[in-house]
Amino acid sequence: MKQHYDVRLDKMFFPRSVAVVGASEVPAKWGNLILTSILGWSFPGTVFPVNPKKDMILGLPAYPSLRDIPAEVDLAVFAVPAQLIPEGLRDCAAKGIKAAVIISSGFREIGAEGAKLEEEIAAVAREHGILFMGPNTMGIVSAHAFFEAIPTPTGPEPGGLAVISQSGNIGLQILKWISHRNIGLSIYAGTGNETMLKAHEILKYLGARDEVKAIAMYIEGIDDGRAFSTVAAEVTRKKPVVAIKSGRSQAGSKAAQSHTGSMAGSFAVYSAMFSQSGIIQVSTPTRLLLVSAAATHLPAPRSNRVAIMTIGGGWGIVAADECEDAGLVLPPLPDGIVEELDAILPAYWNRRNPVDVVGEGDPNLYLTVIEALARWEEVDSVIALGVVGRSRYVEDFIAAQEKLDGKLYTRELKLSILKAQIQAEELTLSGIARIQKESGKPIVAVALTAGGLSLADTSHGKVFVLSTPEDAVSILGHLSWYGRYLKENGPA
Amino acid sequence: MKQHYDVRLDKMFFPRSVAVVGASEVPAKWGNLILTSILGWSFPGTVFPVNPKKDMILGLPAYPSLRDIPAEVDLAVFAVPAQLIPEGLRDCAAKGIKAAVIISSGFREIGAEGAKLEEEIAAVAREHGILFMGPNTMGIVSAHAFFEAIPTPTGPEPGGLAVISQSGNIGLQILKWISHRNIGLSIYAGTGNETMLKAHEILKYLGARDEVKAIAMYIEGIDDGRAFSTVAAEVTRKKPVVAIKSGRSQAGSKAAQSHTGSMAGSFAVYSAMFSQSGIIQVSTPTRLLLVSAAATHLPAPRSNRVAIMTIGGGWGIVAADECEDAGLVLPPLPDGIVEELDAILPAYWNRRNPVDVVGEGDPNLYLTVIEALARWEEVDSVIALGVVGRSRYVEDFIAAQEKLDGKLYTRELKLSILKAQIQAEELTLSGIARIQKESGKPIVAVALTAGGLSLADTSHGKVFVLSTPEDAVSILGHLSWYGRYLKENGPA
Repeated sequence: MKQHYDVRLDKMFFPRSVAVVGASEVPAKWGNLILTSILGWSFPGTVFPVNPKKDMILGLPAYPSLRDIPAEVDLAVFAVPAQLIPEGLRDCAAKGIKAAVIISSGFREIGAEGAKLEEEIAAVAREHGILFMGPNTMGIVSAHAFFEAIPTPTGPEPGGLAVISQSGNIGLQILKWISHRNIGLSIYAGTGNETMLKAHEILKYLGARDEVKAIAMYIEGIDDGRAFSTVAAEVTRKKPVVAIKSGRSQAGSKAAQSHTGSMAGSFAVYSAMFSQSGIIQVSTPTRLLLVSAAATHLPAPRSNRVAIMTIGGGWGIVAADECEDAGLVLPPLPDGIVEELDAILPAYWNRRNPVDVVGEGDPNLYLTVIEALARWEEVDSVIALGVVGRSRYVEDFIAAQEKLDGKLYTRELKLSILKAQIQAEELTLSGIARIQKESGKPIVAVALTAGGLSLADTSHGKVFVLSTPEDAVSILGHLSWYGRYLKENGPA
Repeated sequence: MKQHYDVRLDKMFFPRSVAVVGASEVPAKWGNLILTSILGWSFPGTVFPVNPKKDMILGLPAYPSLRDIPAEVDLAVFAVPAQLIPEGLRDCAAKGIKAAVIISSGFREIGAEGAKLEEEIAAVAREHGILFMGPNTMGIVSAHAFFEAIPTPTGPEPGGLAVISQSGNIGLQILKWISHRNIGLSIYAGTGNETMLKAHEILKYLGARDEVKAIAMYIEGIDDGRAFSTVAAEVTRKKPVVAIKSGRSQAGSKAAQSHTGSMAGSFAVYSAMFSQSGIIQVSTPTRLLLVSAAATHLPAPRSNRVAIMTIGGGWGIVAADECEDAGLVLPPLPDGIVEELDAILPAYWNRRNPVDVVGEGDPNLYLTVIEALARWEEVDSVIALGVVGRSRYVEDFIAAQEKLDGKLYTRELKLSILKAQIQAEELTLSGIARIQKESGKPIVAVALTAGGLSLADTSHGKVFVLSTPEDAVSILGHLSWYGRYLKENGPA
C-alpha cells in the first residue's frame, strides 16, 4: 500500500505527461493561469490541454476529453467546475491515469451540498485506485522536474526546501519568497481539503527523498494526530521539519474552523505533539520561511550557546536582548580569547560577548575575530552583526559626491572605492563560509541594509545574510532547539 | 534658559552656515564623509571646510582655523582627534559660534583618560555658552533644512518623523530605512555620549515643533529619569513618541553598560516609566521604525477593537492569532453588516470577523466591504489583507507567457492585463485612503508581495501597506495602546 502511494506520488510530482482539464485561452481563468505556469517554465514532458470547445489552446492541440488523448498521461490537473469532477475522475480511470490534482473549489468549504460532492469524488477515486491532491488547492510545484501547476508562475531554483501548505494564499506567498530569494525549492504541495491525500502522507514522501533537506509546513488542522506524529517523529530524525499551526488564538481558531472546515483542536495539544515529534514550531509565516530556509542551508547548532561579533555597540545589545527571549545563552569570553583579541583590537575594546570591534572596517580583522569565536568550544554558533551591507552606503556616498561642484573625484577613483568595498565584503562572506565549513557551526551574518533574507554565494558555499539581529537570533534559537532534540533522540 | 537652549538648537538644526573642522579630501576619512554628505544634498547655506593643511577642499576655500572664517558661522561640526576638541571649542567661543556637533570619539567610552577629556570639553563649552551634541555621535540630519552631517548621505524626503538615537549604527540604519521607504523625516539626532545635550532636551525641542508629527527613540540609558519622564508626559499628550529601551536582558544590559558607559538601570523601571508617560514601547529597532512611521501617518485608533477583511482564509487566521497576542479584539460581526455583505458575497461566505471575501478580485467589492467595516461603530481600525500586491503576480504571469511558443497573446493584450491590474490596485488604494479620511479610523493594507513597509500615494492621501499580517497587527496594537492612553490622559 505504501509502495502504491509512492508510485502515484511520483507520477504526481515527476510526471512525464500532464493533462490540464479545463485549459483555456481566456486570461485570468484558472485553466488559463495553470496552463500558463506549466508552459512558461522548462517542463520537459508533454502537456495536453483538455477542452471540448477548442482545437488548439496556447499553441497546443486540445482534446475534448481525457479519453481522447492519444498518449499515456501520468497526471491530470483539474480546473473545471466542481460538478464535473466525478466524470473527470471516471475519465482518468478509463485512460489509466492514477494521479490527479484537483484545483477546483466548491466542495466541503461551501456547505452540505459541496460536502456530498466531495464524498462522491473520494469514492470514485478509491474505486479506481486514483490518488488526488485537493480539491480546493492552488496546486503543486516540483522544481527538480521544472513543473508547476499553480495560478501564478514562480519558477524557483531547484533546491532542498519542501513546503506543505493547508492555505493556498499563504503557500503562494511562501513560494514567491523562496523564488525571489533563491532559497531553492524541491516540492511544494498545497493540500487543499485533504480529502484523500493528507499532510502527513506528503510529509512521509518528502522525508524519504534525498534532495529534500528541510520541510516547511503551514498547518490549520490535522484529523489524524496519531498518524501525523508517528510520521513526523520518523522524518525529523532525518531532516528538520518546521511548522506553524495557525488558529492558536480563540478568534483564529474560529476562523480556521470556517476556512477549511477542519477541527482546529486545542493549540496546546498541537504544540506538545510538535515538540514531542521533533517539529520546530514557529508562530508566523515569515518565521516559517526564515527558519525553514535556514534549516535547509545551515547545520543545526549542538547547543544554545552563542557568540556575537558586532561592529556597533547598539546592535550587540539588541541582539543580546533577543537571545534571552529566544532561549539562547551568551557565555562570558574566556581569558584565552580575550588575550587573542587584545592583540588586534583597540585597547579599549569591551572584552565581552558580544564582542564590539568598535567600528573597525577591516575584513581580515572581522574574520580573525569570527574564527576565534567559532573555535571557542563553549559556543555552537556565531552571529556577525554589520560586517556586510556597507556597499549600499558606499553607493549612496558616491551618488552624493556626483553632485559636488568640484567634481574632485574622478569616475575611476569613485569606482575603485566601490570596488574595494565590494571586494572587502566578498572576502568577508567567503571567509565566513569557510569558517562555517571548517567549524561545522552555523555562522549567520546580519547586514546593515538588506531587505529581509538573502543567500550570498561564495567560493566556499552559501552564507545566510539577514537584515535584523532578531531574525538571526530567531533562526539560531529554533535550530538549536532542533539540535538539542536530535542529541536527545538521536539522528536516524 | 529654555529660550537660550532653543535658540542654540535652532542654530544646530537650521544653520545658515556650517564649518566642518577636520574637513578632508581623503576618501573614507570622517572629515571627508561628513563634508560629502553636507555638500551632496541641497543645503542652501554656506559651508566652510576647516583644515590647516589645505587651501581648497572639495572645491571650496578651506580655512586654517574657525577663527579665520571671514563670515558668521551658526554651527561647527568637529571631525578631528579628541584631543583637539578643547581648542576647537575655544575657537568657537572666539568666533561667536554657539552650537557644535562633536562627531569625534575618544572620550568616556575609551576609559578614564577619555572621561577626563570629556569633562574638560564640557567645562569649556559651559564657560563660553556653547551647546554641543555628542561627542562620539555619528551626527545629525535636518531634512526641512536639507542638512545632514552624518558619515553616509541619506537625503530623506522632508516629513513628519523625528528620530533620537543613542546608537550611531542603529540610528543610521533607521535613517536609511526612512529614506528608502519615503516615510519623511524632520530631524535625526544621534546623541552620542550626551555630555551636555540629553535625549530629553531634544525630545522637548521636537515636541514643540509643528512639523514633527511623531518621534522615534532608541534608548540605551537615561541618567535623569525624572526630567525625562516629565518631558515625555508633556510631549506625548501632543504627539506620539515610540521608544525602544535596549539592554532589557541581563546580557544586553551588561553590553549596554560597556557601550556608552551609561547606567542601564532596571528594564522594569524604564518600562513602567514609559507606560506612565505615554511612550509607546517596542522591543526591536524594526518595530521602532514600523510603529513610528505608522504613528506619523495614521490616526491613533480610539480602542483595541479591529475588523479584518481577507481575500484568503489563511491570512485571516494568522492575523487573528497575532491580534490576540497584541491585545487587539475582534468583535463578532453584527447582523446589520452580515445582511449587507450577504447581498454582495457568495452564499457560503464565512459571516465572521475576519471577513473572508473568498478570493473575489473586484476592487469595488473590496471597498464596499472595507467601507462597511469602517462604518461599524464597534471597531476603531480595519486591516485589509491581500487586496494589493497582485500586480507583481501578474508581472510574473506575463513573463511566463512570453516564453510560450504560440505567443498567443499580443504585447498589447499583455500590457492591458497588467494595466488593468495596476489600475484596480490604484482604485483600491485610493478608496482605502478616502475611507480612512472619512471614518477617521486607520485602515492598514497588507500586500501579497511587498518587502517590508511601503507608503502608497493616492489622490486621497497615503496608505500604509505592509508585507505581513503580523506587522499590521503590531502597528495597530501599539497605536491603539496610545489611543487609549490619550483618552485617559487627555490630549494637550
